[in-house]
Amino acid sequence: VVHLITGGAGFIASHLVSALLLRGHDVVVFDNLALGNLQHLDAALASGHCTFMQIDCANLAEFRAAVGTSLDGRRGFAIWHLAANSDIPAGITDPHIDLRDTFLTTFNALLVMREFAIPEFHFASSSAVYGDFGDLEISEHAGPCQPISNYGAMKLASEGQICAALESRGRRASIFRFPNVVGTPATHGVILDFVNKLRVDKNRLPVLGDGTQQKAYLHVDDLIAAMLFIAEVGPAKINLYNIGPRDAGVTVRFIAECVREVVSPGAEIIYGRGNRGWVGDVPRFRYATDRLAKLGWEPSLSSEAAVRRAVRDVAASFLL
Amino acid sequence: VVHLITGGAGFIASHLVSALLLRGHDVVVFDNLALGNLQHLDAALASGHCTFMQIDCANLAEFRAAVGTSLDGRRGFAIWHLAANSDIPAGITDPHIDLRDTFLTTFNALLVMREFAIPEFHFASSSAVYGDFGDLEISEHAGPCQPISNYGAMKLASEGQICAALESRGRRASIFRFPNVVGTPATHGVILDFVNKLRVDKNRLPVLGDGTQQKAYLHVDDLIAAMLFIAEVGPAKINLYNIGPRDAGVTVRFIAECVREVVSPGAEIIYGRGNRGWVGDVPRFRYATDRLAKLGWEPSLSSEAAVRRAVRDVAASFLL
Repeated sequence: VVHLITGGAGFIASHLVSALLLRGHDVVVFDNLALGNLQHLDAALASGHCTFMQIDCANLAEFRAAVGTSLDGRRGFAIWHLAANSDIPAGITDPHIDLRDTFLTTFNALLVMREFAIPEFHFASSSAVYGDFGDLEISEHAGPCQPISNYGAMKLASEGQICAALESRGRRASIFRFPNVVGTPATHGVILDFVNKLRVDKNRLPVLGDGTQQKAYLHVDDLIAAMLFIAEVGPAKINLYNIGPRDAGVTVRFIAECVREVVSPGAEIIYGRGNRGWVGDVPRFRYATDRLAKLGWEPSLSSEAAVRRAVRDVAASFLL
Repeated sequence: VVHLITGGAGFIASHLVSALLLRGHDVVVFDNLALGNLQHLDAALASGHCTFMQIDCANLAEFRAAVGTSLDGRRGFAIWHLAANSDIPAGITDPHIDLRDTFLTTFNALLVMREFAIPEFHFASSSAVYGDFGDLEISEHAGPCQPISNYGAMKLASEGQICAALESRGRRASIFRFPNVVGTPATHGVILDFVNKLRVDKNRLPVLGDGTQQKAYLHVDDLIAAMLFIAEVGPAKINLYNIGPRDAGVTVRFIAECVREVVSPGAEIIYGRGNRGWVGDVPRFRYATDRLAKLGWEPSLSSEAAVRRAVRDVAASFLL
């Protein structure tokens, strides 16, 4: 069967492509390469079972034509929609970025699902849909969702549009509420940011905010395992799950110290003020993942272990 | 001070225009007159304190220019955003309708808020954001929202976008989760539908579904009172409230019998099958309104009383 993956040249999606190929599926990847990188797909493309189409999924005519061409009469089994603007601060400056790249891509992917009678739709949503719940542990049943970034708003919009579309078309959908995800090939995020800062000046690591922001981090390998698990065994028509580690996360301070230890042990970490790194950042964040645990899946790495492993891998990637 | 009202020529919004004028405010109304009707504003326009601009709020350039012209150097105090596609079945057939009329109008209204430094934003959201919670009473804290119509999806998207926008701009926002609203001038809805059917054939009243669908109904006068109350005393930056009667609602059967009694007592009511009238309809629906009651507001009419009064008024409007 054929799986279609939007944004497939991105950090997380390229791991998904590999995992689906390993399971013996054919894969078609759509990516505009604005944030993705074709190198992430080198091994996948060499397998002979992965087709790549450079298109913009926000352009419906282009998207539709590419799906028709790539399927070439075969039946698409699932769309994995991971295309989105992953640069949250950019989307806060200009709301049109998330409207187009985070929401309209979803809107179009659902029209494609309908047009090509593709039965399954799996969506990379985000903890950013919730907004700031303070110290409360956030379960899937928490409401109201009040996202504080346009990125989070357009992920929430996408969830709604998926639910509405599944009412009349499509057989099954997954909505994965992603946590912060770490691993390589890192394209953005706090670990890459810190590593890059120390590569510029090995003596100083300036940190936005006072370092007390605490978040849970999941390793990308665990995330992919969870997505495949939910897509396979999710019992509902729409399977909506928080995906994350079972712990309360680690602080920015912990991450800064990890990076320093690996990259430049003598550096001084210089903290800023306040517990928000930037507008749209949620200072503390606690995810309830009981629902997924009850379904039968738990991550293999804690936030601490995931960050430690990712720091080593990101740092090592610069030595290649 | 000047209040800007989008969709101001619609059923509910025209009542809001009158209420704001009564409080001594100046009002500017934007409406594309696709679903609204300028006659609804006859009295308002005669007051000399209401300006009307026929524009499409989904067109940002047009919207922005109209706001500049109508404010003419005055400071806008609040945007009341009520423009939306109110034809839910049409939006299910073509998702682009709700994308444009229900969501992009909100997206643009928030850009206008920012550009013209308007401090308050009040939004007509909907119970349709929740989706089907079965027999559970739905409070504002219920989640996840899984709307089953594109209309509900784009109202949810609008809520998210408002929350994100208020993070960096605007001083206060209200999100009113409307129930089903009845009253005159009726433009759509089950009461008008039934009255029209009996005007076509006074002997037969065909009903979609088996008549057991139960929903709460609020009279438009109560709704406007609640909106003004929340906008004035809501204590949070974003004040999100279910607005509805304190009861569990009435069935379609009750409404059909009310309409028959007033319009054509001898008619036969002919029920269909199933408890859903159309795709995107939620068969049962129970709203928790404790939050608003705790803030200090309760409706004056029950669902039953609101429906009885609206049936009389809608029927009477055809005799004029």
